[in-house]
Amino acid sequence: MAQRQALRLAMLGGGEGAFIGAVHRMAAGVDGDWRLVAGAFSSDAARNTRSGESLGLDPARVYATFDELLAAERALPEDKRVEAVAIVTPNHLHAPMSIAALDAGFHVMCEKPMSLNLEEAKAIAAAVERSGRHYALAFTYSGYPLVEEARARVERGDFGTIRLVQVEYSQGWLARAIDRDGNKQAEWRTDPARAGLGGCLGDIGTHAFQLAEHVSGLKVESLCAELTTHVPGRRLDDDVSVLLRFAGGARGVLKASQVAAGDENGLRLRVHGELGGLDWAQMEPNTLTLRWLDKPVEVLRTGGPALSEGAAARTRTPAGHPEGYIEAFANIYRGFAGAIRGAAPAMWYPGVEDGVRTMAFVEAVVGNAQSDVKWSALG
Amino acid sequence: MAQRQALRLAMLGGGEGAFIGAVHRMAAGVDGDWRLVAGAFSSDAARNTRSGESLGLDPARVYATFDELLAAERALPEDKRVEAVAIVTPNHLHAPMSIAALDAGFHVMCEKPMSLNLEEAKAIAAAVERSGRHYALAFTYSGYPLVEEARARVERGDFGTIRLVQVEYSQGWLARAIDRDGNKQAEWRTDPARAGLGGCLGDIGTHAFQLAEHVSGLKVESLCAELTTHVPGRRLDDDVSVLLRFAGGARGVLKASQVAAGDENGLRLRVHGELGGLDWAQMEPNTLTLRWLDKPVEVLRTGGPALSEGAAARTRTPAGHPEGYIEAFANIYRGFAGAIRGAAPAMWYPGVEDGVRTMAFVEAVVGNAQSDVKWSALG
Amino acid sequence: MAQRQALRLAMLGGGEGAFIGAVHRMAAGVDGDWRLVAGAFSSDAARNTRSGESLGLDPARVYATFDELLAAERALPEDKRVEAVAIVTPNHLHAPMSIAALDAGFHVMCEKPMSLNLEEAKAIAAAVERSGRHYALAFTYSGYPLVEEARARVERGDFGTIRLVQVEYSQGWLARAIDRDGNKQAEWRTDPARAGLGGCLGDIGTHAFQLAEHVSGLKVESLCAELTTHVPGRRLDDDVSVLLRFAGGARGVLKASQVAAGDENGLRLRVHGELGGLDWAQMEPNTLTLRWLDKPVEVLRTGGPALSEGAAARTRTPAGHPEGYIEAFANIYRGFAGAIRGAAPAMWYPGVEDGVRTMAFVEAVVGNAQSDVKWSALG
Amino acid sequence: MAQRQALRLAMLGGGEGAFIGAVHRMAAGVDGDWRLVAGAFSSDAARNTRSGESLGLDPARVYATFDELLAAERALPEDKRVEAVAIVTPNHLHAPMSIAALDAGFHVMCEKPMSLNLEEAKAIAAAVERSGRHYALAFTYSGYPLVEEARARVERGDFGTIRLVQVEYSQGWLARAIDRDGNKQAEWRTDPARAGLGGCLGDIGTHAFQLAEHVSGLKVESLCAELTTHVPGRRLDDDVSVLLRFAGGARGVLKASQVAAGDENGLRLRVHGELGGLDWAQMEPNTLTLRWLDKPVEVLRTGGPALSEGAAARTRTPAGHPEGYIEAFANIYRGFAGAIRGAAPAMWYPGVEDGVRTMAFVEAVVGNAQSDVKWSALG
Repeated sequence: MAQRQALRLAMLGGGEGAFIGAVHRMAAGVDGDWRLVAGAFSSDAARNTRSGESLGLDPARVYATFDELLAAERALPEDKRVEAVAIVTPNHLHAPMSIAALDAGFHVMCEKPMSLNLEEAKAIAAAVERSGRHYALAFTYSGYPLVEEARARVERGDFGTIRLVQVEYSQGWLARAIDRDGNKQAEWRTDPARAGLGGCLGDIGTHAFQLAEHVSGLKVESLCAELTTHVPGRRLDDDVSVLLRFAGGARGVLKASQVAAGDENGLRLRVHGELGGLDWAQMEPNTLTLRWLDKPVEVLRTGGPALSEGAAARTRTPAGHPEGYIEAFANIYRGFAGAIRGAAPAMWYPGVEDGVRTMAFVEAVVGNAQSDVKWSALG
Repeated sequence: MAQRQALRLAMLGGGEGAFIGAVHRMAAGVDGDWRLVAGAFSSDAARNTRSGESLGLDPARVYATFDELLAAERALPEDKRVEAVAIVTPNHLHAPMSIAALDAGFHVMCEKPMSLNLEEAKAIAAAVERSGRHYALAFTYSGYPLVEEARARVERGDFGTIRLVQVEYSQGWLARAIDRDGNKQAEWRTDPARAGLGGCLGDIGTHAFQLAEHVSGLKVESLCAELTTHVPGRRLDDDVSVLLRFAGGARGVLKASQVAAGDENGLRLRVHGELGGLDWAQMEPNTLTLRWLDKPVEVLRTGGPALSEGAAARTRTPAGHPEGYIEAFANIYRGFAGAIRGAAPAMWYPGVEDGVRTMAFVEAVVGNAQSDVKWSALG
Repeated sequence: MAQRQALRLAMLGGGEGAFIGAVHRMAAGVDGDWRLVAGAFSSDAARNTRSGESLGLDPARVYATFDELLAAERALPEDKRVEAVAIVTPNHLHAPMSIAALDAGFHVMCEKPMSLNLEEAKAIAAAVERSGRHYALAFTYSGYPLVEEARARVERGDFGTIRLVQVEYSQGWLARAIDRDGNKQAEWRTDPARAGLGGCLGDIGTHAFQLAEHVSGLKVESLCAELTTHVPGRRLDDDVSVLLRFAGGARGVLKASQVAAGDENGLRLRVHGELGGLDWAQMEPNTLTLRWLDKPVEVLRTGGPALSEGAAARTRTPAGHPEGYIEAFANIYRGFAGAIRGAAPAMWYPGVEDGVRTMAFVEAVVGNAQSDVKWSALG
Repeated sequence: MAQRQALRLAMLGGGEGAFIGAVHRMAAGVDGDWRLVAGAFSSDAARNTRSGESLGLDPARVYATFDELLAAERALPEDKRVEAVAIVTPNHLHAPMSIAALDAGFHVMCEKPMSLNLEEAKAIAAAVERSGRHYALAFTYSGYPLVEEARARVERGDFGTIRLVQVEYSQGWLARAIDRDGNKQAEWRTDPARAGLGGCLGDIGTHAFQLAEHVSGLKVESLCAELTTHVPGRRLDDDVSVLLRFAGGARGVLKASQVAAGDENGLRLRVHGELGGLDWAQMEPNTLTLRWLDKPVEVLRTGGPALSEGAAARTRTPAGHPEGYIEAFANIYRGFAGAIRGAAPAMWYPGVEDGVRTMAFVEAVVGNAQSDVKWSALG
């Protein structure tokens, strides 16, 4: 809520009625690190204006187009112009907007998936490299305190060598053909031109994949996949199953679905090593269960005892005061703000590396699923 | 995060290191309805200054004392002065600060409990009445979407006549004598001069009582109580047990403890009527379980199907994206902002009525527990 | 399932359609320690005969009355006559049958509550004393492996001095006036002549009380109670709330209800000491949760690591193969069989002491609830 | 516990220290339908004798070998000889013993997996056919009341057309090389000569597969599999991942592991159709969760409202009295006894069809996993 030190942010997309734009604003608002001062919210002029008004923005900084925004903000004095842009448009705009913004000198927070395909992702990576700007990618779930705890525990070897990685992401909201019935969220997500190569795969399969590699610290070497479209007429997959072979010998399964009718947002990760395993589920994110060969089950809790520094740094309230999705997201924004300010110690947040990797995954899965090849390499 | 339409807020107390001040700031920051512009954070001058700095406030509006703040802000032009104050000090300052702020023309958001005792609570109520200002009391838990759902379901008669109301609030953080070991949170909460009549009773027993009456829609008519101090040397109760008789014949039990070693923040409410019952627990607040005589158990979920308007209005994300404590708190701030702005429809938030009622409860429990009377009336 | 070494059992009551008789037979059947060879199942002759037939008994050993059974079995040679009787009648027959059977030289397994009142309970205790026979009382829940684990952990001091004991037993099956609508189970349980002093209090309040004292190892010194009858026309209490003061300073609450509409069989015990607490719930009996001041939550599991000998002795399958109510009951039958056979080491089972104590509790609660006395001693 | 009408049973294998033999005896003992009267428990003569003694059997009916048992029992008068044999040996003896027993006129209850391979399974099926005897296969988990409920709900179309079937069976007990350290259970299960084609696949993958097809009512048409051996030196797989394509278009994943360190016996099935989905987990078997597109989550409970006849027929106690693994197993024995007695209505139990099908699955998985073929047909 503070303002003097708050970083100035512009939003691209996310006008009235959009889901993820509002989430970005809430996440950025929690810690007082950010102040929304400009935006190009919609290509619909009236909607754009109304969005700016309802957000209390100076009308002069509610721009008709993304290009206008970049040009006008660049022209403002340094202490007034926005420092970063948040890109919350459909996927096909991620790459052009990210690259242009980076090249114009702005830091970028982008929604996932990073881009339509791997080529675009690499182009963004190159833009980050040449611009020297910071780039964050909204793999929100890696912002939860206990996801960081899980990662830290695997890294320090609590479970011994990792053998199994199981990740699932189960939603049901596309069980009906709502993409043909005017639901905007559904409509663009199932349009290859705007969503990219993957449907369910790109939208939530990427989350699952990023979480699995991030926490396990292991890289998938090859995979065997099936993509299915259950709802007649849909143009992209709505159901994903992938067998995973990790470097070092671990084996895994990734299951994502958007037609698991009745399921909400069931992201769950399990990692087992020689000595025990961990189990984390996003819908009750403040609990991390550890099971062991020879000891009682342990349940770690956000804000509770025995947590690592990284988990503690991502926690705002004492144990038993549930922290949710918006707080996890706020941790990404906090880490991003810290990087811009050069804060030390740095708080990790997902970025270019996660983005390029997940787009490689998307391409490999699509390629494998469309072929008779059993195992495809993931570079 | 927006600013033009944001209401201007000053904070009293809540400097560096304070828990609840930070929570208020996060809660107020979520929806962009508020902007912190002034404060008197601490009686320690250096701490006060540092707090204002770290929050990015104009140093001219970081005041040494509460009185200074009121006087200086009143002197500012209407479009610059703060519109409301948030009082997040220890309990003994709630009444004098609330009354002075109201009489100075400011709206007030106050931490619970309302005051040291019932007399003070009534004085605040009178100040609200005469000032015509809005007053909100941070009974945070009533801001959860599914608490509103529970209330609405009872009100519309889903369970028939209510027979049983069971509420418990179980914490363990005072199981050790940390109040004697320099823990500031613990120290003032166990000092009668600053905490008031009740220890555990005032700190969390009031939450439990407010929740029970709010959701059940029933008033406690009489009670039979036991207050215990388990930790040697502690000057106030750390454990509370109360039998409750409600108007209309329902019976209840209220159990609150701060020495339930290992427990986090276990607030749970169960209400049973002739036809079924509801069960809600704060530590997994996005689930409301309904059990029935002749039907399967139903589980309602934040953002899920079959919810009332009031629950939906308090929800920010789709089902399965957990909303937590800060979001519940943000709902109180949102309702309070709406009242100040004259928004329609109004979104209920806890205020004077809840405050006076809970202080009457505190006095009745203390009186009963210190006597041989079995049942004491609660006016 | 074995037979040569199986002990010979007669059943009193428990004919066709009775619930608890069938449960006793299943519990006794699990481990092959018992063989039902005789019975007087019902005062209705046809029903008695049919019950014996369906159980495959020799018609000569299906007796018209309890007295006949005792006389006839006594007259059989020692290696043929029954060694024990299981009494599964309504409560008013427990005392006369138990005493007669004991005095006739038979061991007795009796349903709870022990008797109609404390006087009868003491008379049974005297009969056990003078007969030298073994007496078991079906406080089934104390047969669960993790209840034994809980008891052992408290006893060895894991939690330090105990401060809080909370026990609840919540059922909903009497939320309607089914006792007036021909439900036999409900009908006798709400008839003072057959049920005794307490309704819900005697039927399930006794279970809760026995469990609380058994696990905590503490004795209640005084209590303050409320008994309520919510269903119009019912002659006994259907809802019980009791504040408890234990020797040594621990405080407790016992809540039992049979009008918690929608609840199944919700027996739950929580015990907190200085260092942590335990939490066990009968409806998921294979999990015992331990919470600590400074360590992660631990979850003990039936068949899992770190359990005491007593818990292991009561377990039949590896962890993850759920053991249920019948297995818990079978543990009581197993301990009882062991005592008769003089097995070493003995496996504890509930008996006279638990019975007398619970009947004293019933009398104290009824006396207190009917008076204006706040605290009544429990001898 | 009854005896006259009890069916006479012989046990093959299952001597002292064996796990599954004791489970069979308990399961058979629960309902009084069976009486163990003979056995050939071990090829170790002393162990065999001691087993018979401890079970209270007539020493004349404790046979040194399986062949002796068949011959001797056949020679007994019809009203004395055993009616069925329970085969609880390692897998390699299942086929020869089953076939011999069937051909000798005895009914057979056999442990899973049915046999070492598909050819043997078909030979058993032929023996069942020609002998006219009843054959039951201990796919225990299909005996749970709520598994039957799940099956019935899918069958009657509650979820619409089925799209997703996810089954997992996660154990951790083979995470260490205990098969080389003298653990008998582990040792034979990882010996191809005694276990058959599959390790984890045969031992628990078959359970998972049977459950998936049984409940979904769908047949797997093709599969894509990976088998892994994580523990060095182990001769059979200890980890299984299979992608499934069902007739009609449903897709599935089967995951089984015995190296998921810390996991107990985590069998879980999820089935989703167009309208909703079901979720059942063996470790809390008395809960069946139904999730819907447009309605609140429903939780069905063993013994609770809204259950089908088949579930009710498999339930022994009122809701809230947990029924466990042994009761589920007892339901298989009860159905088997009913079939032998010609009871009507018949209670389904797993048999030849399940056995042949699961062995075909084992062969298809092994074949696919050892090849580069992506999708293999399952006949």
